[in-house]
Amino acid sequence: MANEETIKEVGEFGLIERITGQLSMPASVSVGPGDDSAVFSVDGDAVVSTDMMVEDVHFRRDWCSGFDVGCKLIARSFADLEAMGATSRGCVVAISMPEELQAEWFKDFFQGVSAEVAKARAVLVGGDITSGEKIVATATVFGQMEGRAPVLRSGAKPRDVVALCGRQGWAAAGWATLSRGFRSPRAAVDAYRCPEVPYGAGRIAADAGANAMIDVSDGLIADLGHIAEKSNVLIDIDSSSLEIPGPLQNVGAALNSDPLNFVLTGGEDHPLVATFADYVPQGWAQIGRVLDPVEGSANVLVDGEEWETEYSGWTHF
Amino acid sequence: MANEETIKEVGEFGLIERITGQLSMPASVSVGPGDDSAVFSVDGDAVVSTDMMVEDVHFRRDWCSGFDVGCKLIARSFADLEAMGATSRGCVVAISMPEELQAEWFKDFFQGVSAEVAKARAVLVGGDITSGEKIVATATVFGQMEGRAPVLRSGAKPRDVVALCGRQGWAAAGWATLSRGFRSPRAAVDAYRCPEVPYGAGRIAADAGANAMIDVSDGLIADLGHIAEKSNVLIDIDSSSLEIPGPLQNVGAALNSDPLNFVLTGGEDHPLVATFADYVPQGWAQIGRVLDPVEGSANVLVDGEEWETEYSGWTHF
Repeated sequence: MANEETIKEVGEFGLIERITGQLSMPASVSVGPGDDSAVFSVDGDAVVSTDMMVEDVHFRRDWCSGFDVGCKLIARSFADLEAMGATSRGCVVAISMPEELQAEWFKDFFQGVSAEVAKARAVLVGGDITSGEKIVATATVFGQMEGRAPVLRSGAKPRDVVALCGRQGWAAAGWATLSRGFRSPRAAVDAYRCPEVPYGAGRIAADAGANAMIDVSDGLIADLGHIAEKSNVLIDIDSSSLEIPGPLQNVGAALNSDPLNFVLTGGEDHPLVATFADYVPQGWAQIGRVLDPVEGSANVLVDGEEWETEYSGWTHF
Repeated sequence: MANEETIKEVGEFGLIERITGQLSMPASVSVGPGDDSAVFSVDGDAVVSTDMMVEDVHFRRDWCSGFDVGCKLIARSFADLEAMGATSRGCVVAISMPEELQAEWFKDFFQGVSAEVAKARAVLVGGDITSGEKIVATATVFGQMEGRAPVLRSGAKPRDVVALCGRQGWAAAGWATLSRGFRSPRAAVDAYRCPEVPYGAGRIAADAGANAMIDVSDGLIADLGHIAEKSNVLIDIDSSSLEIPGPLQNVGAALNSDPLNFVLTGGEDHPLVATFADYVPQGWAQIGRVLDPVEGSANVLVDGEEWETEYSGWTHF
């Protein structure tokens, strides 16, 4: 794809041809891209989740490359499957792009999609490409339960321990960095551009008997709040158990802000947080406990107190 | 939902609550909306397709209500499953909307989605709602093969008959009507606003041994061209077999245009077209035949000749 070509010049079918020529399907996918639908086998119940990213809402083109957007779209979608204890299988991606967009951007996006789909051990089986003023991309991901029971938000029980698997707070630190016009620390900025989903950890949690699970997309307090609400419990986070990695400390110091805020309220890292009756599996770290609900109290506390912050999780509108 | 409320006033979680309160799940859906993913059983191979509609590209808000957009999004998506010979099961819908949009529009959209999902005998199992300057909606639909082999575009064989099931040309006549500033004939305009997909006809075709199948989204000649190309055959349409219904004749007369053009080149009606070795099942009408490919010829002919028109099917960019 020459650098100067636009989407309009390459055309819808040209873009599709360039993609499908690069894809190879495993035997379990009997029909891949290029027909009306994709067809594949599923072991046990099917699991599905859909996620949309909109230019200038979820990403800015001057902050994130096409690769970043593709990678993040796929990562955040498969994180929702992990949070059920499912095994990832495949995905479809729909995207609208302005006609004057460089075809190179789309190539880059597709490479980000492909790289992350491979990390998730899944396959891109189809998609849709259309024109539109802004870039809007939707990923719908599929997995299979392989006989396991799905781990819901509603299963947490008083006296469970709360455990976390994966990085948390990094993306918020990266976003804060970019917002102030800086580009480093690079590790935080990269974490904002594409999360590192702990692929496979959801299945491990399910096999270890997790009672409830969610991926942290909106913030640790906000997402534990979804578990607390659906399970009718109180969750108390032990802040001393939360690691504050060096890059987060550096961003906090540079911006004169408590880096614990990144960890407690930052979204978009997509680690998994789950509750377990007793056994916390390898790779997971205990960060709190589940208590009986208390009338009139917030349903998530930090060290027994309500966490006071101006920012308590991402909401649309 | 009061008429004057905006999307911003109701909020993301408010919109989701209003939807999920109205949904009921069959036993085969063990996890519906409200958790990280949906979980459901699948009989045989799973079938999936995704489709995106963009405001001012695929629809205009002054021509189509929220109900129309929801209905059309779902209909065109499930038509892709029909075209494999699959049985529809479920779908997820992602949508971006401007903050200042009337919440009533979204309620209307959701009712259109629900009505069409019910027609398809499927279930809405999840979704995603976000803000964005334009309305952009993606449906991803799932079905199951129940032991049938998927009917591909690539299976047509010389000496097959070509058969059509469903209305064709109506949406194009409706679009032409609206484009000239008219609102009638109403039947054509309604067909443009929401197609009548022949649900169940794909499975009947598969059971009757269809060799190839596609739904007509871009135009009869254009979509038969996909079959011809993938199957390496020539397809000859017999124009005398194509019915020109009254409303299409009326639009043609009013616009001084040959109504056969609507039938041959119009998209967005989503009937099914398939090829059969011998037996054409009930509800299907023979409209042509499959021939050996001819070097240097167009791969779809009408009465043995190339069809000359300024418009030969919808393409993006």
